[in-house]
Amino acid sequence: MKVAIQGERGAFSHEALRRTLPAAEVLACATSKDVFDAVERGRASAAVIPIENTLAGPVAEHYDLLLARRLWIQRESRLRIVHNLIAAPGVRLADVREVYSHPVALDQCRDFFRRHRRIRAVPFYDTAGAVKHVIAQERRDCAAIASRQAAREYGGEVLRAAIEDDKQNFTRFFLVSRQKRVLAGANKTSLAFAVKNVPGALFKALSVFALRDISLSRIESRPVKGRPWEYVFYADILRGRDTAAHNALSHLAEICDFVRVLGIYPAAR
Amino acid sequence: MKVAIQGERGAFSHEALRRTLPAAEVLACATSKDVFDAVERGRASAAVIPIENTLAGPVAEHYDLLLARRLWIQRESRLRIVHNLIAAPGVRLADVREVYSHPVALDQCRDFFRRHRRIRAVPFYDTAGAVKHVIAQERRDCAAIASRQAAREYGGEVLRAAIEDDKQNFTRFFLVSRQKRVLAGANKTSLAFAVKNVPGALFKALSVFALRDISLSRIESRPVKGRPWEYVFYADILRGRDTAAHNALSHLAEICDFVRVLGIYPAAR
Repeated sequence: MKVAIQGERGAFSHEALRRTLPAAEVLACATSKDVFDAVERGRASAAVIPIENTLAGPVAEHYDLLLARRLWIQRESRLRIVHNLIAAPGVRLADVREVYSHPVALDQCRDFFRRHRRIRAVPFYDTAGAVKHVIAQERRDCAAIASRQAAREYGGEVLRAAIEDDKQNFTRFFLVSRQKRVLAGANKTSLAFAVKNVPGALFKALSVFALRDISLSRIESRPVKGRPWEYVFYADILRGRDTAAHNALSHLAEICDFVRVLGIYPAAR
Repeated sequence: MKVAIQGERGAFSHEALRRTLPAAEVLACATSKDVFDAVERGRASAAVIPIENTLAGPVAEHYDLLLARRLWIQRESRLRIVHNLIAAPGVRLADVREVYSHPVALDQCRDFFRRHRRIRAVPFYDTAGAVKHVIAQERRDCAAIASRQAAREYGGEVLRAAIEDDKQNFTRFFLVSRQKRVLAGANKTSLAFAVKNVPGALFKALSVFALRDISLSRIESRPVKGRPWEYVFYADILRGRDTAAHNALSHLAEICDFVRVLGIYPAAR
Protein backbone atom coordinates (compact mmCIF):
# COMPACT_ATOMS: atom_id res chain seq x y z
CA MET A 1 0.00 0.00 0.00
CA LYS A 2 1.37 3.40 -1.04
CA VAL A 3 0.39 6.46 1.04
CA ALA A 4 1.02 10.09 0.01
CA ILE A 5 2.29 12.75 2.42
CA GLN A 6 3.14 16.43 1.97
CA GLY A 7 6.80 17.13 2.63
CA GLU A 8 9.93 15.04 2.57
CA ARG A 9 10.24 11.51 3.97
CA GLY A 10 10.61 11.86 7.74
CA ALA A 11 8.00 14.65 7.98
CA PHE A 12 5.60 14.44 10.93
CA SER A 13 2.97 13.07 8.51
CA HIS A 14 5.39 10.20 7.83
CA GLU A 15 5.72 9.54 11.58
CA ALA A 16 1.90 9.60 11.91
CA LEU A 17 1.61 7.13 9.01
CA ARG A 18 4.23 4.79 10.46
CA ARG A 19 2.19 4.54 13.67
CA THR A 20 -1.13 3.93 11.86
CA LEU A 21 0.05 1.66 9.02
CA PRO A 22 3.64 0.55 9.76
CA ALA A 23 3.97 -1.47 6.55
CA ALA A 24 2.81 1.28 4.16
CA GLU A 25 5.14 2.67 1.53
CA VAL A 26 5.52 6.49 1.48
CA LEU A 27 5.00 8.77 -1.52
CA ALA A 28 6.53 12.17 -0.65
CA CYS A 29 4.77 15.07 -2.44
CA ALA A 30 5.89 18.72 -2.68
CA THR A 31 2.49 20.35 -2.07
CA SER A 32 -0.85 19.46 -0.49
CA LYS A 33 -2.49 19.70 -3.93
CA ASP A 34 -0.02 17.09 -5.21
CA VAL A 35 -1.03 14.84 -2.29
CA PHE A 36 -4.73 15.03 -3.23
CA ASP A 37 -3.89 14.57 -6.94
CA ALA A 38 -1.81 11.46 -6.17
CA VAL A 39 -4.72 9.76 -4.41
CA GLU A 40 -7.38 10.89 -6.90
CA ARG A 41 -5.30 9.65 -9.87
CA GLY A 42 -4.44 6.35 -8.19
CA ARG A 43 -0.68 6.92 -7.76
CA ALA A 44 -1.29 6.40 -4.02
CA SER A 45 -4.13 4.51 -2.40
CA ALA A 46 -4.44 6.93 0.52
CA ALA A 47 -2.88 10.04 2.07
CA VAL A 48 -2.05 11.14 5.60
CA ILE A 49 -2.73 14.86 6.14
CA PRO A 50 -2.42 17.05 9.26
CA ILE A 51 -5.71 18.83 9.97
CA GLU A 52 -5.09 20.74 13.21
CA ASN A 53 -2.41 21.38 15.78
CA THR A 54 -3.11 22.20 19.44
CA LEU A 55 -0.80 25.26 19.32
CA ALA A 56 -0.96 26.51 15.72
CA GLY A 57 -4.62 25.70 15.02
CA PRO A 58 -6.22 24.35 11.85
CA VAL A 59 -4.35 23.51 8.64
CA ALA A 60 -6.61 25.72 6.55
CA GLU A 61 -5.46 24.45 3.16
CA HIS A 62 -6.46 20.89 4.08
CA TYR A 63 -9.95 21.96 5.16
CA ASP A 64 -10.31 23.75 1.80
CA LEU A 65 -9.06 20.70 -0.13
CA LEU A 66 -11.36 18.28 1.73
CA LEU A 67 -14.27 20.35 0.44
CA ALA A 68 -12.94 21.07 -3.07
CA ARG A 69 -11.94 17.44 -3.75
CA ARG A 70 -13.71 14.14 -3.19
CA LEU A 71 -11.54 12.15 -0.79
CA TRP A 72 -13.06 10.44 2.21
CA ILE A 73 -11.78 10.45 5.81
CA GLN A 74 -11.21 6.83 6.91
CA ARG A 75 -9.26 7.33 10.13
CA GLU A 76 -8.00 10.00 12.48
CA SER A 77 -4.89 9.86 14.67
CA ARG A 78 -3.09 12.15 17.08
CA LEU A 79 0.65 12.56 17.29
CA ARG A 80 2.62 14.25 20.05
CA ILE A 81 4.95 16.65 18.21
CA VAL A 82 8.47 16.15 19.56
CA HIS A 83 11.13 18.41 18.07
CA ASN A 84 14.69 17.03 18.06
CA LEU A 85 17.99 18.68 17.26
CA ILE A 86 19.54 16.49 14.57
CA ALA A 87 22.98 16.64 12.94
CA ALA A 88 25.42 14.49 10.98
CA PRO A 89 27.01 11.66 13.03
CA GLY A 90 29.90 12.90 15.16
CA VAL A 91 28.82 16.55 15.24
CA ARG A 92 28.69 17.90 18.83
CA LEU A 93 26.33 20.58 20.11
CA ALA A 94 29.36 22.85 20.76
CA ASP A 95 30.13 22.77 16.99
CA VAL A 96 26.68 23.95 15.92
CA ARG A 97 26.31 27.57 14.73
CA GLU A 98 23.16 27.35 12.56
CA VAL A 99 19.94 25.37 12.96
CA TYR A 100 17.61 24.86 9.98
CA SER A 101 13.91 24.08 10.22
CA HIS A 102 10.40 25.14 9.23
CA PRO A 103 9.54 28.55 10.77
CA VAL A 104 6.72 27.00 12.89
CA ALA A 105 9.15 24.44 14.38
CA LEU A 106 11.79 27.14 15.07
CA ASP A 107 9.12 29.23 16.77
CA GLN A 108 8.12 26.26 18.96
CA CYS A 109 11.72 25.87 20.24
CA ARG A 110 12.42 29.44 21.39
CA ASP A 111 13.73 28.38 24.81
CA PHE A 112 16.44 26.32 23.12
CA PHE A 113 17.66 29.36 21.13
CA ARG A 114 17.45 31.53 24.24
CA ARG A 115 19.73 29.09 26.09
CA HIS A 116 22.16 28.83 23.13
CA ARG A 117 22.69 32.42 22.04
CA ARG A 118 25.55 31.61 19.64
CA ILE A 119 23.21 29.43 17.53
CA ARG A 120 21.28 31.12 14.73
CA ALA A 121 17.82 29.88 13.66
CA VAL A 122 17.54 29.63 9.85
CA PRO A 123 14.05 29.21 8.31
CA PHE A 124 13.74 26.29 5.86
CA TYR A 125 10.75 25.05 3.80
CA ASP A 126 10.34 21.74 5.65
CA THR A 127 11.48 20.10 8.92
CA ALA A 128 12.59 16.76 7.44
CA GLY A 129 13.93 18.58 4.37
CA ALA A 130 16.18 20.56 6.73
CA VAL A 131 17.72 17.31 8.06
CA LYS A 132 18.19 16.00 4.52
CA HIS A 133 19.88 19.30 3.57
CA VAL A 134 22.22 19.42 6.58
CA ILE A 135 23.32 15.79 6.12
CA ALA A 136 23.69 16.06 2.31
CA GLN A 137 25.84 19.19 2.62
CA GLU A 138 28.07 17.42 5.17
CA ARG A 139 28.03 20.58 7.26
CA ARG A 140 29.71 20.09 10.66
CA ASP A 141 28.52 23.46 12.04
CA CYS A 142 24.83 22.95 11.23
CA ALA A 143 21.91 21.02 12.64
CA ALA A 144 18.18 20.79 11.95
CA ILE A 145 15.01 20.50 14.02
CA ALA A 146 12.69 17.67 13.02
CA SER A 147 11.07 14.37 14.03
CA ARG A 148 13.04 11.30 15.14
CA GLN A 149 11.77 9.68 11.95
CA ALA A 150 13.73 12.28 9.94
CA ALA A 151 16.95 11.34 11.79
CA ARG A 152 16.38 7.66 10.93
CA GLU A 153 15.54 8.50 7.34
CA TYR A 154 18.72 10.48 6.53
CA GLY A 155 21.19 8.86 8.93
CA GLY A 156 21.29 11.82 11.31
CA GLU A 157 21.95 11.70 15.03
CA VAL A 158 19.73 13.22 17.69
CA LEU A 159 21.91 15.73 19.59
CA ARG A 160 19.10 16.90 21.90
CA ALA A 161 15.68 15.24 22.11
CA ALA A 162 12.39 17.01 22.84
CA ILE A 163 13.54 20.62 22.66
CA GLU A 164 10.00 21.99 22.06
CA ASP A 165 8.89 24.64 24.60
CA ASP A 166 5.36 23.36 25.09
CA LYS A 167 4.81 19.64 25.62
CA GLN A 168 1.05 20.03 24.99
CA ASN A 169 1.88 20.03 21.29
CA PHE A 170 -0.25 17.53 19.35
CA THR A 171 -1.25 17.26 15.72
CA ARG A 172 -4.37 15.53 14.54
CA PHE A 173 -4.09 13.68 11.21
CA PHE A 174 -6.62 12.22 8.79
CA LEU A 175 -6.08 9.17 6.60
CA VAL A 176 -8.03 9.93 3.42
CA SER A 177 -8.76 7.73 0.40
CA ARG A 178 -11.10 7.47 -2.59
CA GLN A 179 -13.16 4.66 -1.06
CA LYS A 180 -16.06 5.71 1.14
CA ARG A 181 -15.26 2.95 3.59
CA VAL A 182 -16.56 3.12 7.16
CA LEU A 183 -14.39 1.12 9.57
CA ALA A 184 -15.85 -1.01 12.38
CA GLY A 185 -16.25 1.03 15.55
CA ALA A 186 -16.72 4.31 13.64
CA ASN A 187 -18.13 6.76 16.22
CA LYS A 188 -17.20 10.16 14.82
CA THR A 189 -18.43 12.07 11.75
CA SER A 190 -16.82 15.04 10.02
CA LEU A 191 -19.03 17.26 7.91
CA ALA A 192 -19.09 20.59 6.10
CA PHE A 193 -22.13 22.86 5.80
CA ALA A 194 -23.05 26.39 4.74
CA VAL A 195 -25.86 28.20 6.51
CA LYS A 196 -28.18 30.66 4.81
CA ASN A 197 -27.30 34.32 5.41
CA VAL A 198 -30.15 34.96 7.87
CA PRO A 199 -30.09 35.83 11.62
CA GLY A 200 -29.75 32.81 13.90
CA ALA A 201 -28.75 30.49 11.05
CA LEU A 202 -25.77 28.89 12.84
CA PHE A 203 -27.80 28.54 16.04
CA LYS A 204 -30.49 26.64 14.10
CA ALA A 205 -27.83 24.47 12.44
CA LEU A 206 -26.33 23.50 15.81
CA SER A 207 -29.82 22.81 17.20
CA VAL A 208 -30.12 19.69 15.00
CA PHE A 209 -27.33 18.16 17.13
CA ALA A 210 -28.11 19.72 20.52
CA LEU A 211 -31.79 18.70 20.42
CA ARG A 212 -30.68 15.08 19.83
CA ASP A 213 -27.94 15.16 22.53
CA ILE A 214 -25.23 14.76 19.90
CA SER A 215 -21.92 16.26 21.02
CA LEU A 216 -19.90 18.52 18.77
CA SER A 217 -16.16 18.06 19.39
CA ARG A 218 -15.03 20.78 16.99
CA ILE A 219 -16.29 23.54 14.74
CA GLU A 220 -14.20 25.55 12.31
CA SER A 221 -15.15 28.21 9.77
CA ARG A 222 -13.49 29.02 6.45
CA PRO A 223 -14.27 31.82 3.99
CA VAL A 224 -16.12 30.97 0.77
CA LYS A 225 -14.02 32.00 -2.24
CA GLY A 226 -15.85 34.44 -4.53
CA ARG A 227 -18.46 35.29 -1.89
CA PRO A 228 -16.83 37.77 0.52
CA TRP A 229 -17.88 37.56 4.19
CA GLU A 230 -19.65 34.22 3.73
CA TYR A 231 -18.34 31.12 5.50
CA VAL A 232 -18.40 27.33 5.33
CA PHE A 233 -18.45 25.48 8.65
CA TYR A 234 -16.63 22.25 9.37
CA ALA A 235 -17.91 20.25 12.32
CA ASP A 236 -17.05 16.95 13.99
CA ILE A 237 -19.81 15.14 15.85
CA LEU A 238 -19.29 12.27 18.27
CA ARG A 239 -21.54 9.82 16.45
CA GLY A 240 -21.07 7.25 13.71
CA ARG A 241 -23.81 5.73 11.55
CA ASP A 242 -26.87 5.63 13.77
CA THR A 243 -30.48 6.82 13.57
CA ALA A 244 -29.94 10.00 15.60
CA ALA A 245 -26.97 11.07 13.45
CA HIS A 246 -28.88 10.22 10.27
CA ASN A 247 -31.90 12.27 11.39
CA ALA A 248 -29.71 15.17 12.51
CA LEU A 249 -28.03 15.31 9.08
CA SER A 250 -31.41 15.23 7.29
CA HIS A 251 -32.60 18.00 9.57
CA LEU A 252 -29.40 19.99 8.88
CA ALA A 253 -30.00 19.66 5.11
CA GLU A 254 -33.43 21.30 5.57
CA ILE A 255 -31.79 24.34 7.16
CA CYS A 256 -28.57 24.70 5.17
CA ASP A 257 -27.56 25.71 1.65
CA PHE A 258 -25.51 22.53 1.51
CA VAL A 259 -24.30 19.71 3.77
CA ARG A 260 -21.56 17.20 2.95
CA VAL A 261 -20.29 14.31 5.04
CA LEU A 262 -16.48 14.16 4.75
CA GLY A 263 -16.01 10.88 6.61
CA ILE A 264 -17.24 8.56 9.36
CA TYR A 265 -14.43 6.97 11.37
CA PRO A 266 -13.34 5.69 14.82
CA ALA A 267 -12.34 8.52 17.18
CA ALA A 268 -8.60 8.55 18.04
CA ARG A 269 -7.46 7.14 21.45
CA MET B 1 -0.82 60.60 15.80
CA LYS B 2 1.56 57.64 15.34
CA VAL B 3 0.07 54.29 14.26
CA ALA B 4 1.94 50.96 14.27
CA ILE B 5 1.70 48.43 11.44
CA GLN B 6 3.34 45.05 10.89
CA GLY B 7 5.59 45.03 7.83
CA GLU B 8 7.38 47.70 5.87
CA ARG B 9 5.92 51.09 4.93
CA GLY B 10 3.64 50.51 1.94
CA ALA B 11 2.22 47.25 3.33
CA PHE B 12 -1.52 46.74 2.88
CA SER B 13 -1.95 47.75 6.55
CA HIS B 14 -0.38 51.09 5.60
CA GLU B 15 -2.87 51.49 2.75
CA ALA B 16 -5.74 50.64 5.13
CA LEU B 17 -4.45 53.22 7.61
CA ARG B 18 -4.08 55.92 4.94
CA ARG B 19 -7.77 55.49 4.08
CA THR B 20 -8.95 55.57 7.70
CA LEU B 21 -6.64 58.25 9.12
CA PRO B 22 -4.87 59.99 6.21
CA ALA B 23 -2.84 62.30 8.46
CA ALA B 24 -1.46 59.59 10.77
CA GLU B 25 2.25 58.91 10.95
CA VAL B 26 3.33 55.25 10.41
CA LEU B 27 5.49 53.19 12.74
CA ALA B 28 6.64 50.10 10.78
CA CYS B 29 7.25 47.05 13.04
CA ALA B 30 8.92 43.75 12.15
CA THR B 31 6.47 41.43 13.91
CA SER B 32 2.87 41.49 15.15
CA LYS B 33 4.15 41.20 18.72
CA ASP B 34 6.23 44.36 18.16
CA VAL B 35 3.06 46.11 16.95
CA PHE B 36 1.17 45.26 20.15
CA ASP B 37 4.23 46.17 22.28
CA ALA B 38 4.52 49.56 20.54
CA VAL B 39 0.94 50.49 21.43
CA GLU B 40 1.03 49.06 24.96
CA ARG B 41 4.27 50.91 25.78
CA GLY B 42 3.04 54.17 24.22
CA ARG B 43 5.47 54.34 21.29
CA ALA B 44 2.37 54.43 19.07
CA SER B 45 -1.11 55.59 20.02
CA ALA B 46 -2.84 52.92 17.92
CA ALA B 47 -2.21 50.06 15.47
CA VAL B 48 -3.85 48.86 12.26
CA ILE B 49 -3.92 45.06 12.04
CA PRO B 50 -5.42 42.72 9.41
CA ILE B 51 -7.85 40.27 11.03
CA GLU B 52 -9.26 38.27 8.11
CA ASN B 53 -9.04 37.96 4.35
CA THR B 54 -11.87 36.73 2.13
CA LEU B 55 -9.58 34.22 0.39
CA ALA B 56 -6.96 33.25 2.98
CA GLY B 57 -9.18 33.36 6.08
CA PRO B 58 -8.38 34.62 9.59
CA VAL B 59 -5.04 36.09 10.67
CA ALA B 60 -4.73 33.64 13.54
CA GLU B 61 -1.85 35.41 15.28
CA HIS B 62 -3.90 38.60 15.61
CA TYR B 63 -6.84 36.77 17.16
CA ASP B 64 -4.42 35.22 19.66
CA LEU B 65 -2.84 38.61 20.44
CA LEU B 66 -6.21 40.36 20.90
CA LEU B 67 -6.92 37.84 23.66
CA ALA B 68 -3.43 37.71 25.20
CA ARG B 69 -3.00 41.50 25.29
CA ARG B 70 -5.29 44.33 26.42
CA LEU B 71 -5.82 46.49 23.33
CA TRP B 72 -9.31 47.62 22.36
CA ILE B 73 -10.88 47.57 18.89
CA GLN B 74 -11.98 51.12 17.99
CA ARG B 75 -12.75 50.77 14.28
CA GLU B 76 -12.95 48.22 11.51
CA SER B 77 -12.32 48.81 7.81
CA ARG B 78 -12.27 46.75 4.64
CA LEU B 79 -9.73 47.07 1.87
CA ARG B 80 -9.93 45.57 -1.60
CA ILE B 81 -6.56 43.86 -2.08
CA VAL B 82 -5.13 44.95 -5.44
CA HIS B 83 -1.79 43.40 -6.38
CA ASN B 84 0.41 45.45 -8.72
CA LEU B 85 3.59 44.57 -10.55
CA ILE B 86 6.10 47.24 -9.50
CA ALA B 87 9.64 47.90 -10.73
CA ALA B 88 12.26 50.65 -10.81
CA PRO B 89 11.40 53.56 -13.17
CA GLY B 90 12.18 52.76 -16.80
CA VAL B 91 12.11 48.95 -16.40
CA ARG B 92 9.81 47.33 -18.99
CA LEU B 93 7.82 44.13 -18.51
CA ALA B 94 9.92 42.47 -21.22
CA ASP B 95 13.05 43.00 -19.07
CA VAL B 96 11.62 41.25 -16.01
CA ARG B 97 12.90 37.75 -15.18
CA GLU B 98 12.17 37.51 -11.44
CA VAL B 99 9.26 38.77 -9.35
CA TYR B 100 9.59 39.04 -5.56
CA SER B 101 6.68 39.05 -3.11
CA HIS B 102 5.13 37.40 -0.06
CA PRO B 103 4.15 33.77 -0.86
CA VAL B 104 0.44 34.54 -0.31
CA ALA B 105 0.57 37.41 -2.85
CA LEU B 106 2.48 35.25 -5.39
CA ASP B 107 -0.15 32.53 -4.95
CA GLN B 108 -2.94 35.05 -5.59
CA CYS B 109 -1.38 36.05 -8.96
CA ARG B 110 -1.00 32.60 -10.56
CA ASP B 111 -2.63 33.61 -13.85
CA PHE B 112 0.01 36.30 -14.34
CA PHE B 113 2.83 33.76 -13.98
CA ARG B 114 0.99 31.34 -16.28
CA ARG B 115 0.82 34.03 -18.96
CA HIS B 116 4.50 35.00 -18.48
CA ARG B 117 6.33 31.68 -18.36
CA ARG B 118 9.80 33.25 -18.52
CA ILE B 119 9.20 35.09 -15.22
CA ARG B 120 10.12 33.28 -12.02
CA ALA B 121 8.19 33.90 -8.75
CA VAL B 122 10.58 34.39 -5.80
CA PRO B 123 9.15 34.22 -2.26
CA PHE B 124 10.02 37.21 -0.04
CA TYR B 125 9.12 37.98 3.60
CA ASP B 126 6.88 40.98 2.82
CA THR B 127 5.09 42.55 -0.19
CA ALA B 128 6.22 46.15 0.40
CA GLY B 129 9.63 44.90 1.53
CA ALA B 130 9.97 43.23 -1.88
CA VAL B 131 9.47 46.60 -3.63
CA LYS B 132 11.98 48.24 -1.30
CA HIS B 133 14.48 45.45 -2.05
CA VAL B 134 14.06 45.54 -5.84
CA ILE B 135 14.42 49.36 -5.97
CA ALA B 136 17.34 49.46 -3.51
CA GLN B 137 19.26 46.81 -5.45
CA GLU B 138 18.71 48.78 -8.69
CA ARG B 139 17.89 45.52 -10.44
CA ARG B 140 16.59 46.05 -14.00
CA ASP B 141 15.48 42.42 -14.46
CA CYS B 142 13.38 42.24 -11.29
CA ALA B 143 9.98 43.42 -10.13
CA ALA B 144 7.82 42.98 -7.03
CA ILE B 145 4.12 42.45 -6.31
CA ALA B 146 2.62 44.85 -3.76
CA SER B 147 0.15 47.65 -3.11
CA ARG B 148 0.14 50.94 -5.01
CA GLN B 149 1.12 52.53 -1.71
CA ALA B 150 4.40 50.56 -1.83
CA ALA B 151 5.17 51.97 -5.31
CA ARG B 152 4.62 55.51 -3.99
CA GLU B 153 6.70 54.81 -0.91
CA TYR B 154 9.85 53.59 -2.68
CA GLY B 155 9.58 55.47 -5.98
CA GLY B 156 8.63 52.40 -7.99
CA GLU B 157 6.48 52.35 -11.13
CA VAL B 158 3.42 50.20 -11.61
CA LEU B 159 4.12 48.03 -14.70
CA ARG B 160 0.82 46.15 -14.51
CA ALA B 161 -2.04 47.07 -12.18
CA ALA B 162 -4.50 44.63 -10.58
CA ILE B 163 -2.84 41.33 -11.55
CA GLU B 164 -4.61 39.35 -8.79
CA ASP B 165 -6.61 36.33 -10.07
CA ASP B 166 -9.67 36.83 -7.87
CA LYS B 167 -11.15 40.32 -7.57
CA GLN B 168 -13.25 39.22 -4.56
CA ASN B 169 -10.13 39.68 -2.45
CA PHE B 170 -10.77 41.86 0.61
CA THR B 171 -9.02 42.22 3.94
CA ARG B 172 -10.73 43.38 7.09
CA PHE B 173 -8.60 45.52 9.44
CA PHE B 174 -9.00 46.64 13.04
CA LEU B 175 -7.73 49.89 14.48
CA VAL B 176 -6.73 49.03 18.07
CA SER B 177 -5.60 51.26 20.92
CA ARG B 178 -5.23 51.30 24.69
CA GLN B 179 -8.30 53.51 25.26
CA LYS B 180 -11.62 51.72 25.59
CA ARG B 181 -13.30 54.40 23.50
CA VAL B 182 -16.64 53.65 21.80
CA LEU B 183 -17.18 55.85 18.73
CA ALA B 184 -20.55 57.39 17.89
CA GLY B 185 -22.61 55.05 15.72
CA ALA B 186 -20.96 51.92 17.16
CA ASN B 187 -23.23 49.05 16.07
CA LYS B 188 -20.92 46.02 16.16
CA THR B 189 -19.27 44.17 19.06
CA SER B 190 -16.35 41.73 18.95
CA LEU B 191 -15.98 39.29 21.83
CA ALA B 192 -14.12 36.18 22.89
CA PHE B 193 -15.56 33.38 25.02
CA ALA B 194 -14.76 29.84 26.12
CA VAL B 195 -17.56 27.35 26.63
CA LYS B 196 -17.53 24.63 29.27
CA ASN B 197 -16.59 21.19 27.94
CA VAL B 198 -20.14 19.78 28.05
CA PRO B 199 -22.48 18.63 25.24
CA GLY B 200 -24.44 21.47 23.61
CA ALA B 201 -22.25 24.17 25.17
CA LEU B 202 -21.73 26.19 21.97
CA PHE B 203 -25.42 25.86 21.10
CA LYS B 204 -26.33 27.31 24.49
CA ALA B 205 -23.79 30.12 24.04
CA LEU B 206 -25.27 31.08 20.66
CA SER B 207 -28.79 30.94 22.12
CA VAL B 208 -28.10 34.11 24.16
CA PHE B 209 -27.94 35.98 20.85
CA ALA B 210 -30.52 34.03 18.80
CA LEU B 211 -33.19 34.28 21.48
CA ARG B 212 -32.76 38.08 21.46
CA ASP B 213 -32.70 38.33 17.62
CA ILE B 214 -29.08 39.49 17.68
CA SER B 215 -27.24 38.61 14.46
CA LEU B 216 -23.82 37.02 14.51
CA SER B 217 -21.75 38.13 11.50
CA ARG B 218 -18.75 35.92 12.23
CA ILE B 219 -17.51 33.15 14.51
CA GLU B 220 -13.99 31.81 14.64
CA SER B 221 -12.36 29.22 16.91
CA ARG B 222 -8.77 29.05 18.10
CA PRO B 223 -7.04 26.35 20.16
CA VAL B 224 -6.28 27.07 23.83
CA LYS B 225 -2.53 26.73 24.45
CA GLY B 226 -1.73 24.18 27.15
CA ARG B 227 -5.21 22.61 27.00
CA PRO B 228 -5.21 20.32 23.94
CA TRP B 229 -8.52 20.00 22.02
CA GLU B 230 -10.11 22.94 23.86
CA TYR B 231 -11.05 26.10 21.94
CA VAL B 232 -11.75 29.80 22.41
CA PHE B 233 -14.44 31.32 20.22
CA TYR B 234 -14.31 34.79 18.71
CA ALA B 235 -17.66 36.24 17.64
CA ASP B 236 -18.87 39.49 16.10
CA ILE B 237 -22.44 40.55 16.82
CA LEU B 238 -24.33 43.26 14.95
CA ARG B 239 -25.14 45.35 18.00
CA GLY B 240 -23.45 48.18 19.85
CA ARG B 241 -24.18 49.29 23.42
CA ASP B 242 -27.87 48.58 23.95
CA THR B 243 -29.97 46.72 26.48
CA ALA B 244 -30.37 43.55 24.40
CA ALA B 245 -26.62 43.29 23.82
CA HIS B 246 -25.91 43.98 27.48
CA ASN B 247 -28.36 41.29 28.59
CA ALA B 248 -27.02 38.81 26.03
CA LEU B 249 -23.47 39.28 27.33
CA SER B 250 -24.59 38.84 30.96
CA HIS B 251 -26.44 35.69 29.92
CA LEU B 252 -23.33 34.47 28.06
CA ALA B 253 -21.22 34.97 31.19
CA GLU B 254 -23.61 32.64 33.12
CA ILE B 255 -22.93 29.87 30.60
CA CYS B 256 -19.25 30.33 29.76
CA ASP B 257 -15.91 29.84 31.50
CA PHE B 258 -15.04 33.37 30.45
CA VAL B 259 -16.32 36.19 28.25
CA ARG B 260 -14.37 39.25 27.13
CA VAL B 261 -15.50 42.17 25.00
CA LEU B 262 -12.68 43.10 22.59
CA GLY B 263 -14.30 46.24 21.19
CA ILE B 264 -17.51 48.03 20.25
CA TYR B 265 -17.27 49.99 16.98
CA PRO B 266 -19.14 51.17 13.86
CA ALA B 267 -19.51 48.40 11.24
CA ALA B 268 -17.50 49.07 8.03
CA ARG B 269 -19.43 50.40 4.97
